[in-house]
Amino acid sequence: MAKVRVGVAGYGVIGQRLADGVALQKDMELVGVADVAPTLSVRALKEKGMPYAFYTALPEKRADLDAAGIPVSGTLEDLVQKVDIMLDATSAGVGAKNKELYAKYGKKGVFQGGEKNSVADVFFHGYANYEKGIGAQFLKLTSCNTTGVIRAVDCIDRKVGAEKVAMTIIRRVADPGDYHRGLTNALQIDSAPSHQALDLMTIMPHVDATGILVHTPVTHGHIITVVLTPKKDISVEDAIEFFSEHPRIRIVSLAEGFLGNASLFRYARDLGNPRGDMYEIAIWKDAIVKSGRDLMFALNVPQEAVVIPENMDAIRAAMKMQLDRIEGTNTTNKYLGIGKWKA
Amino acid sequence: MAKVRVGVAGYGVIGQRLADGVALQKDMELVGVADVAPTLSVRALKEKGMPYAFYTALPEKRADLDAAGIPVSGTLEDLVQKVDIMLDATSAGVGAKNKELYAKYGKKGVFQGGEKNSVADVFFHGYANYEKGIGAQFLKLTSCNTTGVIRAVDCIDRKVGAEKVAMTIIRRVADPGDYHRGLTNALQIDSAPSHQALDLMTIMPHVDATGILVHTPVTHGHIITVVLTPKKDISVEDAIEFFSEHPRIRIVSLAEGFLGNASLFRYARDLGNPRGDMYEIAIWKDAIVKSGRDLMFALNVPQEAVVIPENMDAIRAAMKMQLDRIEGTNTTNKYLGIGKWKA
Amino acid sequence: MAKVRVGVAGYGVIGQRLADGVALQKDMELVGVADVAPTLSVRALKEKGMPYAFYTALPEKRADLDAAGIPVSGTLEDLVQKVDIMLDATSAGVGAKNKELYAKYGKKGVFQGGEKNSVADVFFHGYANYEKGIGAQFLKLTSCNTTGVIRAVDCIDRKVGAEKVAMTIIRRVADPGDYHRGLTNALQIDSAPSHQALDLMTIMPHVDATGILVHTPVTHGHIITVVLTPKKDISVEDAIEFFSEHPRIRIVSLAEGFLGNASLFRYARDLGNPRGDMYEIAIWKDAIVKSGRDLMFALNVPQEAVVIPENMDAIRAAMKMQLDRIEGTNTTNKYLGIGKWKA
Amino acid sequence: MAKVRVGVAGYGVIGQRLADGVALQKDMELVGVADVAPTLSVRALKEKGMPYAFYTALPEKRADLDAAGIPVSGTLEDLVQKVDIMLDATSAGVGAKNKELYAKYGKKGVFQGGEKNSVADVFFHGYANYEKGIGAQFLKLTSCNTTGVIRAVDCIDRKVGAEKVAMTIIRRVADPGDYHRGLTNALQIDSAPSHQALDLMTIMPHVDATGILVHTPVTHGHIITVVLTPKKDISVEDAIEFFSEHPRIRIVSLAEGFLGNASLFRYARDLGNPRGDMYEIAIWKDAIVKSGRDLMFALNVPQEAVVIPENMDAIRAAMKMQLDRIEGTNTTNKYLGIGKWKA
Repeated sequence: MAKVRVGVAGYGVIGQRLADGVALQKDMELVGVADVAPTLSVRALKEKGMPYAFYTALPEKRADLDAAGIPVSGTLEDLVQKVDIMLDATSAGVGAKNKELYAKYGKKGVFQGGEKNSVADVFFHGYANYEKGIGAQFLKLTSCNTTGVIRAVDCIDRKVGAEKVAMTIIRRVADPGDYHRGLTNALQIDSAPSHQALDLMTIMPHVDATGILVHTPVTHGHIITVVLTPKKDISVEDAIEFFSEHPRIRIVSLAEGFLGNASLFRYARDLGNPRGDMYEIAIWKDAIVKSGRDLMFALNVPQEAVVIPENMDAIRAAMKMQLDRIEGTNTTNKYLGIGKWKA
Repeated sequence: MAKVRVGVAGYGVIGQRLADGVALQKDMELVGVADVAPTLSVRALKEKGMPYAFYTALPEKRADLDAAGIPVSGTLEDLVQKVDIMLDATSAGVGAKNKELYAKYGKKGVFQGGEKNSVADVFFHGYANYEKGIGAQFLKLTSCNTTGVIRAVDCIDRKVGAEKVAMTIIRRVADPGDYHRGLTNALQIDSAPSHQALDLMTIMPHVDATGILVHTPVTHGHIITVVLTPKKDISVEDAIEFFSEHPRIRIVSLAEGFLGNASLFRYARDLGNPRGDMYEIAIWKDAIVKSGRDLMFALNVPQEAVVIPENMDAIRAAMKMQLDRIEGTNTTNKYLGIGKWKA
Repeated sequence: MAKVRVGVAGYGVIGQRLADGVALQKDMELVGVADVAPTLSVRALKEKGMPYAFYTALPEKRADLDAAGIPVSGTLEDLVQKVDIMLDATSAGVGAKNKELYAKYGKKGVFQGGEKNSVADVFFHGYANYEKGIGAQFLKLTSCNTTGVIRAVDCIDRKVGAEKVAMTIIRRVADPGDYHRGLTNALQIDSAPSHQALDLMTIMPHVDATGILVHTPVTHGHIITVVLTPKKDISVEDAIEFFSEHPRIRIVSLAEGFLGNASLFRYARDLGNPRGDMYEIAIWKDAIVKSGRDLMFALNVPQEAVVIPENMDAIRAAMKMQLDRIEGTNTTNKYLGIGKWKA
Repeated sequence: MAKVRVGVAGYGVIGQRLADGVALQKDMELVGVADVAPTLSVRALKEKGMPYAFYTALPEKRADLDAAGIPVSGTLEDLVQKVDIMLDATSAGVGAKNKELYAKYGKKGVFQGGEKNSVADVFFHGYANYEKGIGAQFLKLTSCNTTGVIRAVDCIDRKVGAEKVAMTIIRRVADPGDYHRGLTNALQIDSAPSHQALDLMTIMPHVDATGILVHTPVTHGHIITVVLTPKKDISVEDAIEFFSEHPRIRIVSLAEGFLGNASLFRYARDLGNPRGDMYEIAIWKDAIVKSGRDLMFALNVPQEAVVIPENMDAIRAAMKMQLDRIEGTNTTNKYLGIGKWKA
């Protein structure tokens, strides 16, 4: 079968990882990536010898790319014509504009959490609503925190039903290397409920969700606490068992040495994962407690890479590569090496 | 009526503020403070001209104090003999030893949250169980986070009853100027349930409490989110009204410019409060939400000063200065200037 | 003699401290302060009972002030007419506009380091070039880092002559409570030479200066290392003696417990200084070394308050209150309580 | 020719990278690595499928390793017997004890900067004194900061001579994932001169060096400013040229987007370097200035990986694999892929 041809618009934190992710899918072909300027990431691509063809999204600024010695294979519009589907990881708002280009050539598009919901036909999560994405032209993925939380909530929901969720999002405020945003010695609170709670309800309308978000001056992973009211009472041991079965959830413990978000980043680096990335969320075995019937637990969201698998799922659904949720997500997992360590 | 004579053991972050707090109570006399070495705080006391008499808690190390030019009025044992009650803010574990000294002279003692519960006859909170402290010889105060949370939970509990609490403690990891502890670019999680939840249940045994604690690399104030199940359904507006009536709770908002814990620190400095301290917890009006019948809100705990009022309450209860909870706490509030701004 | 009447435009981090500083000068009268909106600092002024009269600098936005319950005594233009001299601590660029207003009424003005040099007739430092400010209409103060470095360099220069200075500015990136700027887990370098070196040469044209600036994610005080080539060789002990004599320099040591910028902030809080501020720079006795004939040392600059004394000096020079550098700076010091501790 | 057989004791931050570095040297064989407990790094080794044989350095604690499912190939003593040379990256002080074991079997050993100089016959730096290491039994490497600074100073020294160096070390205080040490919102200064200056003089006795060190709360790379007095006056352009020729120095610029230490970490991750590591120091082209005849510049030291190449050099010298400094360091560079990007 012919491979599905994929392009990536926006070669930043997410775009680079999307490109790497697609390159690992044996049934997909990464045609190229597009960006506007010779950023550090584009310079790194050059230093690596251009493993991916590069297209300029801003032809009028091509001189800057030439000055930096970046080989350019064409424009974003050229790239769009060569692919079946575009993954759009441009800055918030740009995706909506790019969508017109994708539509012009009748191509499909997958947008990230920063875009408005209206950009897409379907607001998508690989595990929670794969079926809705099947054959859709434009899909929008949930943002990193929502993606992570839904994995855990959907996991319990499919076992015993989830009624209600109240989450506290302890958000990392910047990525490593970010100089355009930051917070110094301060916690910052947002007005509530947080958008992650509202997004969760859009994907899982049968769950009542709310949440408070607090920004913290760190760069490696959000930690979210979840107070979940299940439809049927379950024990802490039940929860551990359910989470353990999920391919994209790691159960970790303080006893093993996983003391926080930075331990998980270090562990991913020590694993030799490219960029020290991790696709899985982690849930601490020793921080799951009961509050009456409610279950309370804490999960770690590696913000730079967590959405990559669900993006691969989105391609599979949109391109009808797999029509079944489990088959689709499992194929993604196989090619990304997810869950291998559970065996 | 003769003033109650008070001594303070341990002149660190808490001890200094206890001394300042006592000095403001018109019905108390601060006899002196004790510590072991010429720390920065003791050097500052000297530079200020010794407003408080200083006693050495480690007579064998007196030479260090002399070398630093600190005038010494005697030993801790001398101080104990001159007072009616000691506030003990020494390092965890030292209080248990000091207790023997207090007992030897038949004096009362108030210990801080770091000591084991067994050091005291009563585990005390000015608002939640003032009555239990009346006439007691040895009291232990709740720690800063527990003190803050109990103010809010007790406030709701006395209005409509509180059944259950699940809290997420986003903890500041060090105080300004701390070099002996710290965390850099990391969130750290503890095993759950956190001690604050257990302590709350000791003080308020009719409430079922649990909690997860995450340390964050900041120095100005803990933020705690609380998911509280009230006995009777209340609206967000009800909650705001209840909290607003509490003298030791400030209702603040993002709209006013209170964006997080650092805003509150800055505001306290701008108020001209000594050391930039604040006695009140703050609750964000725009981050109170409902989750079914549950109420979810976020509060800020200024860790350096929050326990000072409850320590004054403890003296009042132990010394039978006021036999009524409201009368006792209101007297503390009056002398500390708490609630003045609500008028 | 009639007191010199002073107004303050901009009631932010610097403006508040300028107002407090003027209020302490027995030969000056603080007529009022002006700002544009009900910021936290203005709200704190209200909670304190309006010790200073408040004027609106943006009459068209007065409704916001009224809504926040801030009593308004008039407009900035009203204030300007009532004073002899304005201290302008508005955001960079606004001062240049305000200057027109000051000129319109023939009033003098003192601008802060963020304004362009062209705003003023004289670029001023109380110790280094007091004489230049005498009678001037418009003066611009050096920024916090330059103010601190010049104190130390001028101190040595007046003793043995200074030829050359190469400084490394380890800059705090935000003030406590700042949410509009920040840096998270990153050091950031600027292109060299830094403006502080250029500014030093403008004030002290006989010294050759250069410097590199690195931003760090902290909020309490810049630390600057200086490699200074003196005209005459001096020992470390000489340097300590020279610095010790300077009223606005504190000699501190690691042995006393001053481990870094945060120790100095804590010490100032423990001293009971309003807002935990410190007017003096600090130089570490145990971090002064020789490099051949060069002297290398490290100083701490408390960024929020360090420029206040030199601003008072500027008023004295501009208004010809004292015609002598030593008399002028000493008068400022006396009213601010600087150097008292040296006695 | 038979490959040189190498073992690594201590599989932590440095030990892991040493093992990876040796594994890349085509003329060396990594026999195995040793550690004492199932740390996160050892658990990651297991999850990767044990690419390196693991030996226990604490046989009495073997049960912990078994419980964690770590396959154990023998004891450290077993490992020592199988190798020609050991790289010792154990905690400070342990190396001195291990040395007895290495001596017992007549094996060579290379120790890291944390050990006392007395542990070794030669204090070694690949570029500055390769010749001294030739045939030596025990070598000690310079620490990360000293290694980086010497690269730059030696580079200039070999061109025009270096007389004097005054450096300011802006030190990252912890590595990513460190929870056992940290600093929060504080700069911390050490007594001067810093050990790095003294170490530099031990390796380069003809240079007069001093320095001041300030710890900062970040995790990605130290930044050091150097004020260097050359024997012969050189221009900024000369310096750029000299540095550019050095294989282990990258010339970078703000214009390209390298804004600080975190940019370099991000760039290394984007390059796909294992763990996001970088072997080279970086020097900012736009932060090189002159101070009279002195040259002032700033360099970035990626603390986790910078010493790996010099360790490979040490093996080459000790084992007489290459008798020439340039041949030795170039061979290391070739296998580590250093300088490839300069071509």
